Amino acid sequence: MSGAVQGKRVVVTCADRFMGPATCELFAEQGAEVVADLRDLRPPAACDELIDTHGCPDVLIVNLGAPSSPNTPVEDLDDDTWAEKFEVMVHPLFRLARAVLPTMKQRRAGKIVVYGSATGLRSMAKVSAYSAARAAQVGFVKAAGLEAAPHNVQINLIAQNYVENSEYYPPELVASERFQRHLARNVPAGRLATGREDAELALFLASDKSDFIVGQAIPFSGGWTLQG
Amino acid sequence: MSGAVQGKRVVVTCADRFMGPATCELFAEQGAEVVADLRDLRPPAACDELIDTHGCPDVLIVNLGAPSSPNTPVEDLDDDTWAEKFEVMVHPLFRLARAVLPTMKQRRAGKIVVYGSATGLRSMAKVSAYSAARAAQVGFVKAAGLEAAPHNVQINLIAQNYVENSEYYPPELVASERFQRHLARNVPAGRLATGREDAELALFLASDKSDFIVGQAIPFSGGWTLQG
Amino acid sequence: MSGAVQGKRVVVTCADRFMGPATCELFAEQGAEVVADLRDLRPPAACDELIDTHGCPDVLIVNLGAPSSPNTPVEDLDDDTWAEKFEVMVHPLFRLARAVLPTMKQRRAGKIVVYGSATGLRSMAKVSAYSAARAAQVGFVKAAGLEAAPHNVQINLIAQNYVENSEYYPPELVASERFQRHLARNVPAGRLATGREDAELALFLASDKSDFIVGQAIPFSGGWTLQG
Amino acid sequence: MSGAVQGKRVVVTCADRFMGPATCELFAEQGAEVVADLRDLRPPAACDELIDTHGCPDVLIVNLGAPSSPNTPVEDLDDDTWAEKFEVMVHPLFRLARAVLPTMKQRRAGKIVVYGSATGLRSMAKVSAYSAARAAQVGFVKAAGLEAAPHNVQINLIAQNYVENSEYYPPELVASERFQRHLARNVPAGRLATGREDAELALFLASDKSDFIVGQAIPFSGGWTLQG
Repeated sequence: MSGAVQGKRVVVTCADRFMGPATCELFAEQGAEVVADLRDLRPPAACDELIDTHGCPDVLIVNLGAPSSPNTPVEDLDDDTWAEKFEVMVHPLFRLARAVLPTMKQRRAGKIVVYGSATGLRSMAKVSAYSAARAAQVGFVKAAGLEAAPHNVQINLIAQNYVENSEYYPPELVASERFQRHLARNVPAGRLATGREDAELALFLASDKSDFIVGQAIPFSGGWTLQG
Repeated sequence: MSGAVQGKRVVVTCADRFMGPATCELFAEQGAEVVADLRDLRPPAACDELIDTHGCPDVLIVNLGAPSSPNTPVEDLDDDTWAEKFEVMVHPLFRLARAVLPTMKQRRAGKIVVYGSATGLRSMAKVSAYSAARAAQVGFVKAAGLEAAPHNVQINLIAQNYVENSEYYPPELVASERFQRHLARNVPAGRLATGREDAELALFLASDKSDFIVGQAIPFSGGWTLQG
Repeated sequence: MSGAVQGKRVVVTCADRFMGPATCELFAEQGAEVVADLRDLRPPAACDELIDTHGCPDVLIVNLGAPSSPNTPVEDLDDDTWAEKFEVMVHPLFRLARAVLPTMKQRRAGKIVVYGSATGLRSMAKVSAYSAARAAQVGFVKAAGLEAAPHNVQINLIAQNYVENSEYYPPELVASERFQRHLARNVPAGRLATGREDAELALFLASDKSDFIVGQAIPFSGGWTLQG
Repeated sequence: MSGAVQGKRVVVTCADRFMGPATCELFAEQGAEVVADLRDLRPPAACDELIDTHGCPDVLIVNLGAPSSPNTPVEDLDDDTWAEKFEVMVHPLFRLARAVLPTMKQRRAGKIVVYGSATGLRSMAKVSAYSAARAAQVGFVKAAGLEAAPHNVQINLIAQNYVENSEYYPPELVASERFQRHLARNVPAGRLATGREDAELALFLASDKSDFIVGQAIPFSGGWTLQG
């Protein structure tokens, strides 16, 4: 068998949560040597320790999700809820990139794929903390992606929404008629994506086939970013 | 062998030009039944005739390129040069989509992949006619893509620039030191993409793996769009 | 009285339609010498004739509106309906800019303000012809605006939606409960803008105060574009 | 005299730095009652204290600038430099909005204008920390702006670059031939904007004339965002 990431060493962060399980499964099927890291990346030293432990991989999958704290107007957000979004999703993204870029640039090869959010592109009321943090991820990927490109290192982000995932969409929510009506009204594709489909986009961005795509935030939302 | 478009019927327009050859080759390798159409699509009836002749395919690759007329200030563009961009790239895109959408919607399956241009997203001085026409393609794909999504039909566009192609980048231009300096300064990736790489993105967008991506203009430019 | 365009010669196209009346009124109040042109700009020679007749103005207000043909799926659009959008809104924009740019560049002073549409930015289903033409306007303004900027000539576009205007929103439609519910659901500001408010943005873009803003498509939609 | 913000109470943060002086001057000329606050907004309680001290204004001008730390690759950024961008520019923006929104929503009137950066929109290599923080500001303004719009409160951001300002562009830098060449190459308008011009855009966004513009990041960069 010879897959798109055959023999590549792939580190997946927070591998038991969010898009981690689907990613590990697909990449392993495609012949990658998958390192499923589970540590909490909030402590300032955690990102460096992660890379020290596993070495600099060929592909780094930055899989970081905080609760989106939906339906919370700006005036109801407390400082801790606000800070958590940045501590979980933004600062570790920077620290992880900082930890792998010197080696990737020296190798003149490397991929960083970030599972981000379409709320970093399109507005959503009452999720302003989450949106701001997701937008910071997009801003970082665009700047760092531009910086890394001349070294043949590609950094990209999946700007997703409406992807199956038990933390954001628990089964009982998905089963409800109300949620199905919400989907029909808000997602042109009319459904949630599977985690597998999402991982397929990550796989494409992790493969050599996409070397000319750099610094992009690619919408993956069934058309949600297209309309209200 | 079982490729991403195994057994799919794929029509490629203007198949001997622009991204046609690389596309036909890759899709054939991946098990598609490729129909390489060569007709001129400017005559108003040509698009309908094309689909009447071949039938509605599973995947329609809209490969339409007009000369970009570079280095032409607005005041030096004549009406014919302006009109040509729309007659070659914009009106046929609409007519082709119109010809296949009823069947694709009825089948609840179908893909339209458009080779467009990053000049439809980022500005470029002195190519205003070309840029306007390419932006019209993007506008159409976003609107039609939104419209088709609930029918499980996906329309997307590759917003490319700096892809090898003898019409836009003749070999003697590419070989020149001046062009190589231009590349180093303007393309973060520092090189032209191969047609093969470009076709790989089209393949991904033509496969079932990308069913959740709709109405998008995906930059494929080695980072050129990041700087604008 | 000394207004923002005091003593400036301002040509407004199609001045009895769309945003013309509100524009002429506000600009006249602000001390401009307003030329309200009424001609049909579809004939190829009409734009040159307009500028020949009135001379190159200080400010050109490109006010071009075609029926949006709403609720028309791609497959129901005929060639004439499609072509009309480009003949009314796109080709005249190019021809008008071509007619004034040589003089404006020579003067090292000049403003072109285009009343465009937010559908050139955000997708809307079943208005694909209109959206494609409006996107072409945006593409042209970005490219030509970049080109004109070094000559101290500023070209910008108002990407509007939900502005009072009897052609798109006849009074009986606006009065209906159904439309009011549509507004509440789709326009974060919860209302239509007045033509006066829209003209105020055009005035700002026509004044010396905005000389550093070039090639932009500025959303004016009560937040409608935020949701896409 | 009756200016655009006649009689309005306007709070300007960090009023002695960045765009503060030009803003205070113009708004005072236009009849506003300007409150020039000077406090450091990094301490968590500072934003609430500021609003407690002055009361909720009609217009809040969020003027927050941190050093951009240019020419610093990702791998050379230390944790403190990274954190500073968010502590100076992002968290105070949220806290200030949180402090004024309840009263503004209750009044059904209010304006928040943010001096942000075009690096929140367009990529720039080797300023990734600054870019990420500026992108977070944009993300917050889009989300909070959407949320506030139904209450007739407007939040917008000026996405600026190349505006005169002694902190980012010290006089000796501006005077150098090298910088003038840089301007000619990177800024289509070929010059720096004055602080006054920038304040004019803030004034427009602070006036009733722009009530239909919400949640926007408006590029103010002489065309820099258009191109590389």
